[in-house]
Amino acid sequence: MDLPPAPGRRTFASDNWSGAHPEVLEAVSRANDGGHVPAYGADPWTAEAQRLLAEHFGEGTRAYLAFNGTGANVVGLQSLLRPFEAVVCAEGAHIDVDECGAPERFLGSKLVTVAAPGGKLTPELVAGAVTGIGDEHHVQAKVVSITQSTEVGTVYSVDEVAALAEWAHAHGLLLHLDGARIANAAAALGVDIGVFGQAVGVDVVSFGGTKNGALGAEAVLTFRDDDSTGLRFIRKQSMQLSSKMRFVAAQFVALLTDDLWLRNARHANTMALRLGLGAGRIHGVELARPVQANGVFAVLPAAVTTALQADWPFYVWEEATGVVRWMASFDTTESDVDAFLGRLTELMAELG
Amino acid sequence: MDLPPAPGRRTFASDNWSGAHPEVLEAVSRANDGGHVPAYGADPWTAEAQRLLAEHFGEGTRAYLAFNGTGANVVGLQSLLRPFEAVVCAEGAHIDVDECGAPERFLGSKLVTVAAPGGKLTPELVAGAVTGIGDEHHVQAKVVSITQSTEVGTVYSVDEVAALAEWAHAHGLLLHLDGARIANAAAALGVDIGVFGQAVGVDVVSFGGTKNGALGAEAVLTFRDDDSTGLRFIRKQSMQLSSKMRFVAAQFVALLTDDLWLRNARHANTMALRLGLGAGRIHGVELARPVQANGVFAVLPAAVTTALQADWPFYVWEEATGVVRWMASFDTTESDVDAFLGRLTELMAELG
Amino acid sequence: MDLPPAPGRRTFASDNWSGAHPEVLEAVSRANDGGHVPAYGADPWTAEAQRLLAEHFGEGTRAYLAFNGTGANVVGLQSLLRPFEAVVCAEGAHIDVDECGAPERFLGSKLVTVAAPGGKLTPELVAGAVTGIGDEHHVQAKVVSITQSTEVGTVYSVDEVAALAEWAHAHGLLLHLDGARIANAAAALGVDIGVFGQAVGVDVVSFGGTKNGALGAEAVLTFRDDDSTGLRFIRKQSMQLSSKMRFVAAQFVALLTDDLWLRNARHANTMALRLGLGAGRIHGVELARPVQANGVFAVLPAAVTTALQADWPFYVWEEATGVVRWMASFDTTESDVDAFLGRLTELMAELG
Amino acid sequence: MDLPPAPGRRTFASDNWSGAHPEVLEAVSRANDGGHVPAYGADPWTAEAQRLLAEHFGEGTRAYLAFNGTGANVVGLQSLLRPFEAVVCAEGAHIDVDECGAPERFLGSKLVTVAAPGGKLTPELVAGAVTGIGDEHHVQAKVVSITQSTEVGTVYSVDEVAALAEWAHAHGLLLHLDGARIANAAAALGVDIGVFGQAVGVDVVSFGGTKNGALGAEAVLTFRDDDSTGLRFIRKQSMQLSSKMRFVAAQFVALLTDDLWLRNARHANTMALRLGLGAGRIHGVELARPVQANGVFAVLPAAVTTALQADWPFYVWEEATGVVRWMASFDTTESDVDAFLGRLTELMAELG
Repeated sequence: MDLPPAPGRRTFASDNWSGAHPEVLEAVSRANDGGHVPAYGADPWTAEAQRLLAEHFGEGTRAYLAFNGTGANVVGLQSLLRPFEAVVCAEGAHIDVDECGAPERFLGSKLVTVAAPGGKLTPELVAGAVTGIGDEHHVQAKVVSITQSTEVGTVYSVDEVAALAEWAHAHGLLLHLDGARIANAAAALGVDIGVFGQAVGVDVVSFGGTKNGALGAEAVLTFRDDDSTGLRFIRKQSMQLSSKMRFVAAQFVALLTDDLWLRNARHANTMALRLGLGAGRIHGVELARPVQANGVFAVLPAAVTTALQADWPFYVWEEATGVVRWMASFDTTESDVDAFLGRLTELMAELG
Repeated sequence: MDLPPAPGRRTFASDNWSGAHPEVLEAVSRANDGGHVPAYGADPWTAEAQRLLAEHFGEGTRAYLAFNGTGANVVGLQSLLRPFEAVVCAEGAHIDVDECGAPERFLGSKLVTVAAPGGKLTPELVAGAVTGIGDEHHVQAKVVSITQSTEVGTVYSVDEVAALAEWAHAHGLLLHLDGARIANAAAALGVDIGVFGQAVGVDVVSFGGTKNGALGAEAVLTFRDDDSTGLRFIRKQSMQLSSKMRFVAAQFVALLTDDLWLRNARHANTMALRLGLGAGRIHGVELARPVQANGVFAVLPAAVTTALQADWPFYVWEEATGVVRWMASFDTTESDVDAFLGRLTELMAELG
Repeated sequence: MDLPPAPGRRTFASDNWSGAHPEVLEAVSRANDGGHVPAYGADPWTAEAQRLLAEHFGEGTRAYLAFNGTGANVVGLQSLLRPFEAVVCAEGAHIDVDECGAPERFLGSKLVTVAAPGGKLTPELVAGAVTGIGDEHHVQAKVVSITQSTEVGTVYSVDEVAALAEWAHAHGLLLHLDGARIANAAAALGVDIGVFGQAVGVDVVSFGGTKNGALGAEAVLTFRDDDSTGLRFIRKQSMQLSSKMRFVAAQFVALLTDDLWLRNARHANTMALRLGLGAGRIHGVELARPVQANGVFAVLPAAVTTALQADWPFYVWEEATGVVRWMASFDTTESDVDAFLGRLTELMAELG
Repeated sequence: MDLPPAPGRRTFASDNWSGAHPEVLEAVSRANDGGHVPAYGADPWTAEAQRLLAEHFGEGTRAYLAFNGTGANVVGLQSLLRPFEAVVCAEGAHIDVDECGAPERFLGSKLVTVAAPGGKLTPELVAGAVTGIGDEHHVQAKVVSITQSTEVGTVYSVDEVAALAEWAHAHGLLLHLDGARIANAAAALGVDIGVFGQAVGVDVVSFGGTKNGALGAEAVLTFRDDDSTGLRFIRKQSMQLSSKMRFVAAQFVALLTDDLWLRNARHANTMALRLGLGAGRIHGVELARPVQANGVFAVLPAAVTTALQADWPFYVWEEATGVVRWMASFDTTESDVDAFLGRLTELMAELG
């Protein structure tokens, strides 16, 4: 994943290489017209964002806006466990490999990783990692953390999430859902984002706005009150409390107005599907797995990868196997996809 | 400091109750036109922000953009000390009383506080707090942290900062400057912001953009390279790494273009001065100290405070003495000040 | 407190400069005759120590043996608060100034210190430090920690502790008692050690054996069960779980058999009283406060202090005022005291 | 590893189910005759222990006595890395699975585990785990930690340790050696314990006394000075500083006098070998691997394991495969071994 800054403008590198959706920017601008409002979230935009999130996730939803995904994960998890308790997650989970050890450092807890085919945990897989309960020499598994959609582009079905929640609760554990791409998962399944909360037994959600077209806006959603979770204090102490919070909140208001979240996610998913289908038809290109959300994972010859990256930056996912990752975004266009496929076709013919 | 959300639009509550300066918003919008750019800071806006900061703070300046002030302080301090080492700061410093214990939690270090008249440390005051050096039972003072301008509205002169740096270095300590309002201090003294860095011996600066008219943009400035500080990793692990960093960077670009930082700070300071001078002329109102930057601290009868807050939200600074705080901002107008003074005059006549 | 290793054998430096009481050593030896027994506390000596502690502290007492006082304090406090919650303690408390910042580092919490005359907190003093409750910018005071007997040799009466417990509970706080010298306090007041637990509302006790004649044995006492406190895991994770625990336990068994704890503490207190009374009669020597337990605090001319330390090592408590500390121990003899007083008398005559 | 307290006296459960060697107890008793000596290590026994350790480990060795193995590991590792840096260790390493997450909690660092055949790392295995260097999203591998002898009873040769040190240093990493059973390893290889320090490039050693016949005595050995490591402060802050340290030190003095360490370790190894050879000759019993130090790992039918444990407590190492662990200790006798083998023979005939 060693990638120089891209000179070009269109890429399939990541959905956070995109800018923000114009409706998000407009909402931010409008929020600036509010004159002086209380800092730290006691403003009308934050109230509105919270109301809109609760509309999706149900009564009793509490939303704590945060700056970034790592912050939301660490803040949310802190409300669920103590340092001698552990988080069970899939190998390759963002909290495990992409947060520079923030969870271990700020939770004080161990992450117990499980090899998970397709990036998805199951009750059986989790059960195998919950060992040594009651033995003071071992960390005590307390939280199962899943990513929806996953880091490898797959999507948990509603029933799969519900089964994990049920298993977790039956065994004294809690369920955390890292929803950095929750909108893409919901769009893929044709369900509302709010399904992945208390409705199916998820205890805490990291709700991602950034990859869905925001400038930078994440939220921790819980379904218990502030007194029992301490989340208000945890967020502040964890350096995730925005002072001019209206500008974070306005982004959520935009995403949750006129289903912008869905329009963005559906579009990104559609572009990924177009890309995946197209690539799969190119001789010699194999998809690592079917496209389910907005990520496409394909196997390419190394020489093709290198040549293709020169024009279209993207990440090699796994050096050894030649798997590469292409992410579609809310602003990916059909011509982006087609041009990319065109170039890939050429290179496969030349070098593949 | 128990304040209900303000329905009104103009207040003297805090410089973070303001929105953002239009030039900042425009810069953010323009940054959105860049198409796809690498996430996490490898983009042209971040490079430009870093270049501009280095223009002020001198060659070798490294700027790590961050989300908020608490985050910048904690990230910067982490690069200066180990957990058994301590930070010496003034009683009432933001890191001591307004960050919900984030420094203790994430540095693992004790803060040693010093009663500091006017919120300002001196070498003598610091010396009194540096005790038990070499004694393993005691924390080892390693960093002096000052706030410029201070939480109580005062400003360190350039010489005062230089003297602290010299004393610190002579005694094996380092100097951290919390510059949440560094622009106001520089404007007040008629010097460039860049004076308060390596030029006078400051080791790490928390450079504040938010209270200077940004949406939310802070930076950690160091004058040592990344390899020795580890700041790149510290920032990420401390949950302060923005993915779409161009939008944080663009705010700094705006503030540092055509001296917007100075225009904003100078205006806020001028408004505070107007407010302070006006208030001082009202019979029965006393300033707690002369106005130096953009904060005004006055002593009011409790009944006046309560009545005045109904129209013009602001914070009581010290219940016991009746000291209140009025903050001016980049968007405070002369008519705001005059209307406020008018109402204060009325209330003093009635209730004072 | 800069003291070279003492070549001599009798000192008033600290009660941990003594060795162990012979009955403690014998108990340790006897424990070695037990052949193989389970490690980590599932052995008969640990069970017996727990039984004896519960005899004193009442039914429902859970004792977690630990290595040292700092460890016991940090482990016990961890069971009472979360990182955004704070500990209120007296200025100069051991947890504040003698543990190299271990509480901040391992609790993640801030210590809020209160100037406390005679080293003792009162509900009024604590109340003044419990501020900003409900304000997310401030740490939330959750635990009051007192030391019995205190670092400056004073003793809380039973009623004083009860009043603090009552106040704390009435305000949603908990009470921790650092009993590094709990035996000296109990002996001084003529009450059982067990008084200072659930009987008066203390939530967690650090029970000290080391200064009472053990080789090295401390315990965390709680009155809630393991499931709710997590103490078993906290102790292990906090590196305070002994593998061959029988040898720690045997020390407690010895101290709690035939009231060795009381014999030792009473003797030390008596020797301190003899020393205090004698010193008070020497012309020019003034006691800083009356002797209450096993510490004597006196004011000496600096030249006398220096000369006296050459023969009899002890610590200067406060450089500025000339206050010195003399600690009596279980093995202090009348002739130690008399010889010391003789030398002090000589030096006062010469240099005083 | 769910084992009820053993009523019997002779077991193969663990080398920490034994008591202390009589020479250790005598040394502790003798240390009690020293009258008053400075606390916290400024005493003659500590000096002597340090001198003896330096005799083995070479000039410049600094020994910091500690309470237990987890404490020694966490203290030593703290001197080698920062929280964003990671420790590479074998799956099943004590720091990974037997310290209740203490390393993650108190280092703030991630442990990166490697599947290691026979519990031993190699440069090749380590190299595979050192990824993402320079990438701020990933923890930065900084320390390789090995256990000598390993948790599964194997021993690194001197050359193997040297090769790891060389590889580590060549790649900017450091080498930590968890020597909870370093004496058994040295005895097995016929070398001095001191070989496994600076002589072969180890940077920090956790030197274990407890399993070698002490009551409870561990040490952190470093070969850099206190100023650069901060170990004096780290130890205190990490709650591992003994007040009456002479009693910890005296144990090391005993172990290092007349080669008690070697006599104990060699005896334990010999008993393990006798046990392993005997067991291997029983029909149906298979050794999981050859006996190298004082642990024997064998595969037993579950029914035999259960029946045998009733008389001779020991741990099941791996439920799934039926591997059990038998540890020999300094006080294991030939008749223990023979009686155990006799019972095992009976049970295999009956149930095997």
